[in-house]
Amino acid sequence: MFTVALAKGALLQESVSMFSDVGLDFSAVLDDSNRQLMVPSACGRAKALLVRNSDVPVYVSYGQAQLGIVGFDVLQEQKLQVSNLVDLGFGECHMSVAVKSSSGYLSASDLPPNCRVASKFTNCAKHFFDQIDLPVQLVHLSGSVELGPITGMAEAIVDLVATGRTLRDNGLVEIEELFKSSARLVGHPLSLRLDKGPLQEIIDSIQIQSQTNLLSDGKK
Amino acid sequence: MFTVALAKGALLQESVSMFSDVGLDFSAVLDDSNRQLMVPSACGRAKALLVRNSDVPVYVSYGQAQLGIVGFDVLQEQKLQVSNLVDLGFGECHMSVAVKSSSGYLSASDLPPNCRVASKFTNCAKHFFDQIDLPVQLVHLSGSVELGPITGMAEAIVDLVATGRTLRDNGLVEIEELFKSSARLVGHPLSLRLDKGPLQEIIDSIQIQSQTNLLSDGKK
Repeated sequence: MFTVALAKGALLQESVSMFSDVGLDFSAVLDDSNRQLMVPSACGRAKALLVRNSDVPVYVSYGQAQLGIVGFDVLQEQKLQVSNLVDLGFGECHMSVAVKSSSGYLSASDLPPNCRVASKFTNCAKHFFDQIDLPVQLVHLSGSVELGPITGMAEAIVDLVATGRTLRDNGLVEIEELFKSSARLVGHPLSLRLDKGPLQEIIDSIQIQSQTNLLSDGKK
Repeated sequence: MFTVALAKGALLQESVSMFSDVGLDFSAVLDDSNRQLMVPSACGRAKALLVRNSDVPVYVSYGQAQLGIVGFDVLQEQKLQVSNLVDLGFGECHMSVAVKSSSGYLSASDLPPNCRVASKFTNCAKHFFDQIDLPVQLVHLSGSVELGPITGMAEAIVDLVATGRTLRDNGLVEIEELFKSSARLVGHPLSLRLDKGPLQEIIDSIQIQSQTNLLSDGKK
């Protein structure tokens, strides 16, 4: 029996559907009345841990879950010891620098040195501004990062953008993309090395399934 | 005009009611259809920023809000530069060490050295275990900390306890209390020094109101 860490929220529905395609039925976690955080698959071969997006790599890196599904953005922010196995192709978004549309800044290098940048992803932001040699003062926020520039606390934000609606609704505009993100299948490195077959079978099936999905979406 | 940072979630209703008692009506933030994060008071003298619990001290420490209401637990965890002005007496809970009830540990000093402790409040946890001279390995989680001991990833957790129901439902038991928490009125130190009267009036009224509430609750 192995354990799979699934992220609550935006990725959950497609994560369950991905495992269902390879024969593991975790649909019980989608039931609104479910309050269990640990749910066995219908076949009894595996169980799912239902955790926060940012906790998926923690459970996988400690080996409490052998596999997990999580956004690439979380992997980039945390840099924990997990194997990045398959790009699942759903949950697509990108990490961007955004500013007030009235600010006049057209690229990240236009920002004044030592300006303030608000973000939930301060490690990603630090890495980016280090790369372009612009010293900035990072302000860590846990939510509603768009309030940073609106209140005047920060000149810019670094945040995940999916449709761009939140930015537009708040008068913000993207000026630079750090990287693209999508859901990834991750694994516990030691469990993968010691695996006698069952984990690799699931990983191979998910790999084939996700390529099939990509092809049928015409994204070849 | 001054700005007040209010925490979404458990403290919001009583925070709004506290400001209403001293003549500032922010009840618009309680409207389920409200999607604004910045809401003016009915009288136009102030505005409210609606942010995450852990972001309240950030906005207040940078002076984007002159006042804020936030749990003492958040202040203890973050240690940002804000003035802790009034204990408002609501939102009471406590920070505790908890373990599996089957574990046999009766106090924190029973825990084995270098054991793993999962928490959202890793700074508070580190401070506590440093004080009792017990080296532990801290595992930062963002939610559902009770899964730490259940999955076997951690021997203990440090978490906020209000009614204790979550612990009981998960077979966990408290073995030590770190500190008690409740909602606090906090202020931006420089704004308070430069204030010509209006901020201090609000603070004084809230102080009197919260003492009146304590007396009428028979908690004298």
